[in-house]
Amino acid sequence: MSAITPAYRIDDLFADRARKIAPPTYGTELTKIITVSLTYGLADPDLFPQADIAAATTAVLTNTAPAVLNYGPTSPQLYEQLSQRLQTQGIRADRDRLLISYGSAQILGLLPDVFIEPGDVVLIEGPSFLGAVGRFFNAGAKVITIPVDELGLDVDAVEATLIDLKKQGIRPRFIYTIPTFHNPTGSTMPLSRRKKLVALAAEYGVLVVEDDAYGDLRFHGESVPSLASLDEEGWVLYVSTFSKTIAPGVRIGWACGDPAIIERLAMFKSEGPVGPFVSHVIAHYCATGKLDTHIQELIAAYRHKCNLMLDAIAREFPSDVIAVKPDGGFFVWCKLPADMSAKAILTAASEHGVTFLPGTRCYANGQGDDAMRLAFSFQPSEKIVEGIATLGSVLREFRKS
Amino acid sequence: MSAITPAYRIDDLFADRARKIAPPTYGTELTKIITVSLTYGLADPDLFPQADIAAATTAVLTNTAPAVLNYGPTSPQLYEQLSQRLQTQGIRADRDRLLISYGSAQILGLLPDVFIEPGDVVLIEGPSFLGAVGRFFNAGAKVITIPVDELGLDVDAVEATLIDLKKQGIRPRFIYTIPTFHNPTGSTMPLSRRKKLVALAAEYGVLVVEDDAYGDLRFHGESVPSLASLDEEGWVLYVSTFSKTIAPGVRIGWACGDPAIIERLAMFKSEGPVGPFVSHVIAHYCATGKLDTHIQELIAAYRHKCNLMLDAIAREFPSDVIAVKPDGGFFVWCKLPADMSAKAILTAASEHGVTFLPGTRCYANGQGDDAMRLAFSFQPSEKIVEGIATLGSVLREFRKS
Repeated sequence: MSAITPAYRIDDLFADRARKIAPPTYGTELTKIITVSLTYGLADPDLFPQADIAAATTAVLTNTAPAVLNYGPTSPQLYEQLSQRLQTQGIRADRDRLLISYGSAQILGLLPDVFIEPGDVVLIEGPSFLGAVGRFFNAGAKVITIPVDELGLDVDAVEATLIDLKKQGIRPRFIYTIPTFHNPTGSTMPLSRRKKLVALAAEYGVLVVEDDAYGDLRFHGESVPSLASLDEEGWVLYVSTFSKTIAPGVRIGWACGDPAIIERLAMFKSEGPVGPFVSHVIAHYCATGKLDTHIQELIAAYRHKCNLMLDAIAREFPSDVIAVKPDGGFFVWCKLPADMSAKAILTAASEHGVTFLPGTRCYANGQGDDAMRLAFSFQPSEKIVEGIATLGSVLREFRKS
Repeated sequence: MSAITPAYRIDDLFADRARKIAPPTYGTELTKIITVSLTYGLADPDLFPQADIAAATTAVLTNTAPAVLNYGPTSPQLYEQLSQRLQTQGIRADRDRLLISYGSAQILGLLPDVFIEPGDVVLIEGPSFLGAVGRFFNAGAKVITIPVDELGLDVDAVEATLIDLKKQGIRPRFIYTIPTFHNPTGSTMPLSRRKKLVALAAEYGVLVVEDDAYGDLRFHGESVPSLASLDEEGWVLYVSTFSKTIAPGVRIGWACGDPAIIERLAMFKSEGPVGPFVSHVIAHYCATGKLDTHIQELIAAYRHKCNLMLDAIAREFPSDVIAVKPDGGFFVWCKLPADMSAKAILTAASEHGVTFLPGTRCYANGQGDDAMRLAFSFQPSEKIVEGIATLGSVLREFRKS
């Protein structure tokens, strides 16, 4: 047999960045038969406003099909709706400070285009949402992990790092933070830390990227002002989404911040504005005024599921597995005692059909085998109870061995 | 008055590429009151299948809301529908050779990520669709323009250029071509040129990017095989869209080609897969089997409007303005005699409320003041006749002066 070696290969044509790019690791799933996945922050499918979205679609197609179906900008009404929502929350949101995107993931994915050249320094939280962080790595960023505790990002550690970097002549590009109902820990940064972080951003000339995917879903307590609402000088880029409040499948997110940043994000958004069809549908849904009522329903439902999970954990887990009670969001973060490995527990639990996200998949620096992220958002109540019971028996087995 | 100079500026944080990126010039419109715009290749709003899209939306939301509204992949059914359509046209379209995108514009916008490092050579057509070409420039490509005649891209000129570049040790990254119902000239490349172009691609190891946005809209004559269907070795990346056949506003396009390219395009598509909502809606619409009937209706309607425009041109324009009769697509390309300037005519015509795309906005090399692109796709019949009559009187004025 003789194989003819072709003179040219397709791969030779790839740019250097295309040779180096790594496929996302976030999202790989085990091949076992899983009966209760607590892994992903999926929305509860029983809570989608599908009838209202269908009605909104029919309405916009009946009344304004040319604007909805032809080439054109993202729905101006959606920009208006969003702007009003953000202003209500104390965030400056003029049209030139807003960019609607295909989910907040698109904004996070565009950040490297605007800010990162190979070797540039970015500060992230440990743990964090690696779906975003992976993009910073792909762009060649030098990523520094700052610890998160029960009050969110350790802002004193941020300051120490900024001082240290400044001594080396290094100005980081941005600090990526999830201050409210943090993913994965569920923690919420108090006002004092927020004020200090925003002040540090201005003092050191570093952008703060505030990912507020979960902020609308508060179960308990008083809301805390967003970093963006505390920012006078434009050092905060606010990023959020309708994925947790309307539906992830419609892919509507946004960024709000300095017009120069917004303009550049838009220029690197190479497919152009978010499509008229989906944006007009969501604008019409928002214009019905049903969203705020819907969010109240979501809060009640997710609060119930969160409490159910916390109660089950209290019953089923060894007492030295510490569950962090969140004030909102989709996740319960569990810290494991020193003799337990999240990865080993995951392997054992998946044999019994239960999965979760091991802490190792929330850290960019190899940490995290001492923690588990349990999503209560997706599973129905009885499956949450069943999953935690199974996980409890696996944990007790580990304790015995 | 004293202005405090801030110690830091946001702009300082931008990556070099973000400082250099130019806003798209394609899409700027004149500020006059325009009564008949023949400028853009918008779809005819009277031809949208809005009732069928509304019905498809209601159906998928009624029956499969969890898959349609939660996080998840692009509709697998849409991949299946597309794959079948492409296979019918003789194009290999296994799942790993396909990527669904937010319009074909997204694929064209992602090409530089995969293929272009600053200084890399890309071959384009002159004239061409500058919406794509601008992206290549932004990535730092050295763009070489190859002439287009009434039979499409001059493939002999491509060969001469490839030979010349090879002597210099330069291997171009790709050749961007619109072989069928070319934008803007309307020309269609005959089979002999297609075969030669595909052979050249393999011989010189250069990718051919085949933009087939208009291929389904043939008014006359026999269809010619796509470059992709002639390609045995993977040197053609086929790019197309539902923008001309279903609706631009849904933003559904795709690429089909070598799996290594598809994989990388997907990795640089930083917002993740095209959303479940819109992709399930379009998959359901396609599954009704109505698309092919709809395309036949579109062909009849656009053929009628094309003929109307050509007849009006024959009546109204000076005889030495040469209109190229297209076999399909959205545009009539008019070559002007030596004493006329498209830009000057546009200025005069816009005073009378009529606009078109001057040829200068179709060339990357400064050519094109000797041609006009007239879109018949968008305006209703009576407006086409009115617009051409106005343009005719402007042209006759130029002839007199």
